[in-house]
Amino acid sequence: MIRAAELIERKRDGGRLEPEEITELVLGHARGEIPDYQLAAFCMAVYFRGLSAEETLALTEAFVRSGSTLDLRAELGRAVVDKHSTGGVGDKTSLVVGPIVAACGVPFGKMSGRGLGHTGGTLDKLESIPGFRVELSNEQFVEQVREVGLAIIGQSPDLVPADKRLYALRDVTATVDSIPLIAASIMSKKIAAGAEGIVLDVKVGDGAFMKSIEDARILAEAMLELGRGAGRQVVCLLSGMDQPLGWAIGNALEVEEARAMLAGEETAPDLFALAIQAAGRLLALSDLGVDPAEGMRRAEVALDDGSALAAFERWIEAQGGDPAPDALPTASVVHELTFEGEGFVAGVSAMGFGRVALELGAGRRTKEDTIDHAAGIRCWAKRGDAVEPGQPLAEIHARDEEAADRAAQRVRELVTISAEPQPPTPIVLETLA
Amino acid sequence: MIRAAELIERKRDGGRLEPEEITELVLGHARGEIPDYQLAAFCMAVYFRGLSAEETLALTEAFVRSGSTLDLRAELGRAVVDKHSTGGVGDKTSLVVGPIVAACGVPFGKMSGRGLGHTGGTLDKLESIPGFRVELSNEQFVEQVREVGLAIIGQSPDLVPADKRLYALRDVTATVDSIPLIAASIMSKKIAAGAEGIVLDVKVGDGAFMKSIEDARILAEAMLELGRGAGRQVVCLLSGMDQPLGWAIGNALEVEEARAMLAGEETAPDLFALAIQAAGRLLALSDLGVDPAEGMRRAEVALDDGSALAAFERWIEAQGGDPAPDALPTASVVHELTFEGEGFVAGVSAMGFGRVALELGAGRRTKEDTIDHAAGIRCWAKRGDAVEPGQPLAEIHARDEEAADRAAQRVRELVTISAEPQPPTPIVLETLA
Repeated sequence: MIRAAELIERKRDGGRLEPEEITELVLGHARGEIPDYQLAAFCMAVYFRGLSAEETLALTEAFVRSGSTLDLRAELGRAVVDKHSTGGVGDKTSLVVGPIVAACGVPFGKMSGRGLGHTGGTLDKLESIPGFRVELSNEQFVEQVREVGLAIIGQSPDLVPADKRLYALRDVTATVDSIPLIAASIMSKKIAAGAEGIVLDVKVGDGAFMKSIEDARILAEAMLELGRGAGRQVVCLLSGMDQPLGWAIGNALEVEEARAMLAGEETAPDLFALAIQAAGRLLALSDLGVDPAEGMRRAEVALDDGSALAAFERWIEAQGGDPAPDALPTASVVHELTFEGEGFVAGVSAMGFGRVALELGAGRRTKEDTIDHAAGIRCWAKRGDAVEPGQPLAEIHARDEEAADRAAQRVRELVTISAEPQPPTPIVLETLA
Repeated sequence: MIRAAELIERKRDGGRLEPEEITELVLGHARGEIPDYQLAAFCMAVYFRGLSAEETLALTEAFVRSGSTLDLRAELGRAVVDKHSTGGVGDKTSLVVGPIVAACGVPFGKMSGRGLGHTGGTLDKLESIPGFRVELSNEQFVEQVREVGLAIIGQSPDLVPADKRLYALRDVTATVDSIPLIAASIMSKKIAAGAEGIVLDVKVGDGAFMKSIEDARILAEAMLELGRGAGRQVVCLLSGMDQPLGWAIGNALEVEEARAMLAGEETAPDLFALAIQAAGRLLALSDLGVDPAEGMRRAEVALDDGSALAAFERWIEAQGGDPAPDALPTASVVHELTFEGEGFVAGVSAMGFGRVALELGAGRRTKEDTIDHAAGIRCWAKRGDAVEPGQPLAEIHARDEEAADRAAQRVRELVTISAEPQPPTPIVLETLA
C-alpha cells in the first residue's frame, strides 16, 4: 500500500517509474493486491503527466504477461496479420479487409470488441448476421485461421486480464482519454493475440477519440514504438473521421455494405480507398514479399475476380452465419430523405450521425444495453458533393415511425450545405511506419 | 456511477462543479454509494485543477453535514475559541496558549489530531502525561470547557465522518497535498467542533506542508473564506517552520517545555513570541472586547501572575493527568552535545530534526506505530545565534546508546554554521484576517 502511494506520488510530480515498478502496480492490481482506488489515482496522474516510451512499453508488457498469449507462428508455421481501428462511425473496414487479405492467401486473425456510445464495434456488426458466433475458444480460433484463412472473434477472456480490469476502472473514473494508456491497451491485445503484421487505423476527427491530427500522430508513434518493442511489424494509417465512413451506419446495414463492396457493387469512395490501402499494407507486412503498391493491386484483383466475396462467404459460414444478404434483419420502418437545398456538402457530422444511430437503437449507451441490429442510417452525402433539391440524401431504418421522424429531423441538421465548392479531402491523411 | 464519472471528467477538464454536485459526491462516498476509486480519481483531478472558492465551501459544508456538530454557544451561553496549526516540528504552542486563554477567562475547546511522519501531534504530546485521557465524549468535552474553561481532546468519531473517510483515501493515493482539500478538511473539523473564534497557525518552510509563503497565503486565504462562509471569526498567523519551534522536539520534552514557559522559566524566543501572539489574537476574537495588543498584554500578565500555570494544572488534572513535571517519562540515555566550530548558526533543519526525532521513536512512520514518549531532542541552536566551541548545542534523549549516537551524528549535520552574521527572522511572518 505505502509503496503504491509512493509510485502514484512520483508520477503525480512528473517523475518516471522504473519498468519493474509499472509491472508491480499492474500485476498487483490484476491479482487484487493493489486496490482499485490506487490505480484510479495513478491513471489520473498519468492523464496529466503522461508516460515515457519506456513506461508505456513496461505497461504493455505487464498487460501481456498478465494472461495467456497466442503464438500463431508456432501454430500455423507462418505469419498471421491483423487490422485494428481506434473506433469511428460507419467503420466496416475490417469486414472487407479480412476477406480480401484471406483471398490473397494471407491468414488474417483478429480478436475484436463491441461498440459503446456513438462508435460501433465489429462484433456487434457480425452478430447482426443470423447464426454468427463470435465466442470461439483459442483453439477454434487458431483452427479456423488455419483452415479458412480468416477468423474474427471476441476478445478471449484469458488474454490481457490486467488490461481488462484496468480498462473497466478507467471507464468509470474519467481516465480513458490518455494516449499512452490507450496505446498500451490496444497494443497489448494485438500482441497477445499473436499477429505479426498489424495495420492500425487511427481515426482522426469529431467522430473519433483523437480530435486532432497531432494527437493521432502521437498515439500512432506510441503504438509503432510498442510494436517495435514486441518485435511486430506495424503500420499506422491516420484516416479521417469528421464524416461517417462509407454510406451505412448500423450493424446489418454495414454488413450489407461490406458484402456489396466484396461483390463488386458500387462503393462509397472513402470506404473503397481505405479498405484497399489497409489490405495492401497488410499484404506488404505478410510473408508474400510484396510492396504496398503490389499489395493494393492484388487486393483489387481479389475484388474483381470474386475471390474476396468467396472468402467472405466461407468465413461467415465457418462461424455459423448465413452469408446471404437477404438473411440480414431489416427494419420495420424505412424513411427516405431527399436534399431540399442546393450547393455543396460542407459537413456530415460523424459524431452527430453516431448519436442518431445510437438513438435509433444501433448502439449501446451502457454496456448492458441491447442492440437493434436492423436499425441505422444510410447517408449518401459526402463532403464536397454537389447536390440539388430532390436528390437522395439518406434512408432512416427505424423500429417505428416516431423514431424515424426524430432521426430524420436530426439528419437534416447534421448535413450542412454551402454555396461554395468544398475541397475534397483524402480518407487516409498520413501513413506512419 | 455514470454520474460520478461525469463529475470527475468535468473537473479533470478544468470545469466547475455545482455545490449540489460536490455534496452528492462527498455524501455519496461517505454513505458507501460512490466507490473509493471514483473519489480517488476525483481528488487527483482536484490536485491538478484545484477547486473554486464556491466548490471548496461546498466541500467543507458537505463534510460538516456528514456528521454531528457541536453548538458550543448554545451549550455554554458564550463564544468558545480554538487554535489549530497545520503541523510542524517542536510545535507545542497549543499546550501554552490553551491555559493562557483560559486563565484570561475565555473558554478554549479544541479537538486535536495525532502526529504522522516528521510532524508531531498535540494528542501524542498530551498522552506522554501519565493518566491523561484524550478520549472524552462530546458531553464530557462540553462539560469540561464549562467547568475548567479548557479541554483538548481527540477528534470525536461522530464529527465530519466524510472528511475522515476521504482523508484516509487521500493518504494512500498521493492526494493529500492539495490546498483546497487541506483547507476544507481543516475548516470542516473546526466548524463542526463549535468554536466561534479560531486562530490558524499556518506553518511555512522546509518542515511544513507549505514550503513557500505564497502557498501558505493561498491556504490561509482559502481557510479565511471558509470561516466567513460558516460565520466564524478566523485569524491566520503565517509562522516560520524552517527550524524547529522552541527548543524541545519529542512528546514529554515538549510538555515540559510548555509547562516551563507557563511557570515563567526561560523560554525560546520564537515559542514565546508565537504563543503570546496566538493567545492575544484569540482573546481579541473572544467576547472580552479587547484588541490584539490588549490581548497580548493580558496573556503576558497571565504568565507573570501564575494564573496560566494554574489553568494548565487544573486542565491536566481534569483529564486525569499528573501535571507535576517529574511525573513525565524520561529517557534511559541522554547525550549532551556541544558546538565544535564557531560563527553564526545559519540553519537548523526542521525537516531533518523531525526525522531524527522520528527515528528516536518520538513519532510514527505509519498509523500503527507506537510512540516512545520520552524520546526526543533538545536543541539550543537558533538561526542567527553567535556560537563558540564548547557551548551547549543539544541533548539527545534515546532508548539506548546506539540510537543516541546515530542521532547525535545527524544533529551535527543538521545545524549549519556560517562565518557571516545571519539576519534574524521573526517567527510570525504575516497575519491575515
